[in-house]
Amino acid sequence: MAKKGNMLIGQSGGPTVVINQSLVGAVLQAKQMKEIGGIYGTLHGMKGILEENFIDLRKESLKTLEQVANTPASALGSARKKPTDEECVKVFEILKKYDIRYYFYIGGNDSAEATHIINEVAKQVGYDLRCYHIPKTIDNDLRENDHTPGFGSAAKFVACASMGDNLDSRALPGVKINVIMGRHAGFLTAAAALARVYPDDGPHLIYLPERPFSMDQFAADVETTYKKLGRCVIAVSEGIADADGTAIAAKFSKEVDSHGNVQLSGTGALGDLLATEIKNRTKITRVRADTFGYLQRSFPGVVSAVDAKEARTVGTLAVKEALKGKEPSGSIAIRRKPGKTYAVYFERVPLASVSKETRHVPDNFINKSGNDVTQAFFDYARPIVGPLPVIGRFKGVKIAKK
Amino acid sequence: MAKKGNMLIGQSGGPTVVINQSLVGAVLQAKQMKEIGGIYGTLHGMKGILEENFIDLRKESLKTLEQVANTPASALGSARKKPTDEECVKVFEILKKYDIRYYFYIGGNDSAEATHIINEVAKQVGYDLRCYHIPKTIDNDLRENDHTPGFGSAAKFVACASMGDNLDSRALPGVKINVIMGRHAGFLTAAAALARVYPDDGPHLIYLPERPFSMDQFAADVETTYKKLGRCVIAVSEGIADADGTAIAAKFSKEVDSHGNVQLSGTGALGDLLATEIKNRTKITRVRADTFGYLQRSFPGVVSAVDAKEARTVGTLAVKEALKGKEPSGSIAIRRKPGKTYAVYFERVPLASVSKETRHVPDNFINKSGNDVTQAFFDYARPIVGPLPVIGRFKGVKIAKK
Repeated sequence: MAKKGNMLIGQSGGPTVVINQSLVGAVLQAKQMKEIGGIYGTLHGMKGILEENFIDLRKESLKTLEQVANTPASALGSARKKPTDEECVKVFEILKKYDIRYYFYIGGNDSAEATHIINEVAKQVGYDLRCYHIPKTIDNDLRENDHTPGFGSAAKFVACASMGDNLDSRALPGVKINVIMGRHAGFLTAAAALARVYPDDGPHLIYLPERPFSMDQFAADVETTYKKLGRCVIAVSEGIADADGTAIAAKFSKEVDSHGNVQLSGTGALGDLLATEIKNRTKITRVRADTFGYLQRSFPGVVSAVDAKEARTVGTLAVKEALKGKEPSGSIAIRRKPGKTYAVYFERVPLASVSKETRHVPDNFINKSGNDVTQAFFDYARPIVGPLPVIGRFKGVKIAKK
Repeated sequence: MAKKGNMLIGQSGGPTVVINQSLVGAVLQAKQMKEIGGIYGTLHGMKGILEENFIDLRKESLKTLEQVANTPASALGSARKKPTDEECVKVFEILKKYDIRYYFYIGGNDSAEATHIINEVAKQVGYDLRCYHIPKTIDNDLRENDHTPGFGSAAKFVACASMGDNLDSRALPGVKINVIMGRHAGFLTAAAALARVYPDDGPHLIYLPERPFSMDQFAADVETTYKKLGRCVIAVSEGIADADGTAIAAKFSKEVDSHGNVQLSGTGALGDLLATEIKNRTKITRVRADTFGYLQRSFPGVVSAVDAKEARTVGTLAVKEALKGKEPSGSIAIRRKPGKTYAVYFERVPLASVSKETRHVPDNFINKSGNDVTQAFFDYARPIVGPLPVIGRFKGVKIAKK
């Protein structure tokens, strides 16, 4: 029998379009649990705990809760703070002071680690705390999970943006480079491939951080595509690095710093660098770059229905597991059932198994040349992202020349 | 009675999300006109005419036409080519060769000018040509028009992106700079203001090219907002310029060039420059910049219903006017009826009245300090953009500290 007490929930790391679904899923489930007294939200995650800055989520109407669930970005505020050992002890004392017996933290691998440490402190002193991590990351890099809440919707944004950009490039041809989020895992960049509808659609080249990036190969790839199609759309991860593991963006940033010039670690630098290289190495004149930036993780209205539903479910299940499950702590992982029809199941996994290390795009999702994804990636990603806009195209019967 | 003959239609300038609505509106109307024989589309505007590269739009099914209408970016391909006088004569000869009696060109002020020149050549030699320009531009800068097709949908994208970005900034506070399209007219940047729902919502500062940009004032404005709210979201036009009329982005680009370093005229440069200035001039550490880039004009699915409908209507009316109207040439302008309820009417205006010079954001849309828009802008823009996503927010009743 679970102990009576209060619940505290927080959000951490980069926002997503569906992170509030998880929050609201947990709150609505908690409201049904007689063991749970107060339902508190900590403002800005760990920071809110250390400052005892909590709000009463029982005071929010069902209408507000549902509106918040459908609103992008962490409604409680987020934080990137990783607590020190000292702070973990302080956090634990605050949890005790507020009679928190149910603790939920929505985030990525760092958030899982913080949750794990707090759980260990509670265990050491024999304080009965139910401690659950709820998965979230557009990077899709949590271990144990087939995919993570937030990824499907961010991937839908990237796919839609790439669809539009491919059409833009068809209308006004040239070389177009799109820099997409993902410092270490290339899942989101790979999702640009979903934009393809017709055989000549872009992105024509895709570069992920999982493969070493060679500027020579890049320029050669672009030239080949441009000669064939008269245009070339490229999706590239912000985290691409050379064979030594040095990020291409970092190399550039350093180079400029050494001249004592304006700092260029900003969002546009990698795209500008790649565009300049293509201009210098080829005879192509119209070369443009965009960096999709923060829009990828917070754009309202561009949501994968599957993603929203699963994000709600992991929130709900974390509370159920914490109250009714065998284990006092854990994380809710999304697993995919084998077979052709998309179906998932959810499983409690130990906190340590999703914290620290992350996962990467598997080898069978990347083509041999390291400049595209494979059919296996399409099979993996399509059901998570869901239907995309219909793209019309003229068959274009030519009028005979006179 | 209009002459029997063929029709040619083309698209020009930057793509928009609804430019194909105008194309399809014109084609469907043309199909009902017995005077019109062939309905040809020129591929890539003026370039397609000079190369006699036409497709047969009568061969496209109604299903394809409707799918194309709802697909972003010029389906016929676009061009930025402004024909020389020599080329205009050549264009005219090609029109004659293909017995083109109805000529439609969808685009901005440059496209109107090209249409005007071709019309003048035809008039000089007494060739009976009906010559109409169909308005299109996300910049919203065509004279004679209350607003232009393409603007409403691009404005909706900018408003949605700014809504998401404001939420992102609430979750992880700092300074966020968003660079928005519009080299000379600030309408699209102003549309970021529509993102505001709650009193402390961003964008908190808005800078348009219609007012001289001062870096000192900018830094002071940002600091004031940051002190008050702990964060600051800024919308800035790519075309902001100093009191001498020198573009801020250009100044930066030149500076780097003079050092013989990497070229930085790319999309990220202005955002990076402004972010660096804020970091250097204030003690604020988390400063980020995004450039919305090409996504603003081609993102599928983010469409203003009013914009799509009006874009269709100007295409339809151009054909009707060309066949049934008193004047053999002109452009279809959108006028707004006075009164509180949004309603428009359409009027034929002379080609010369919408070509060459463009219009700017009127003074009464910009606040005294030149760092925000006024209520008059909201009243103007809201009905064109249409409903935006509902943004939920907790009322956030604080838990008493223990």
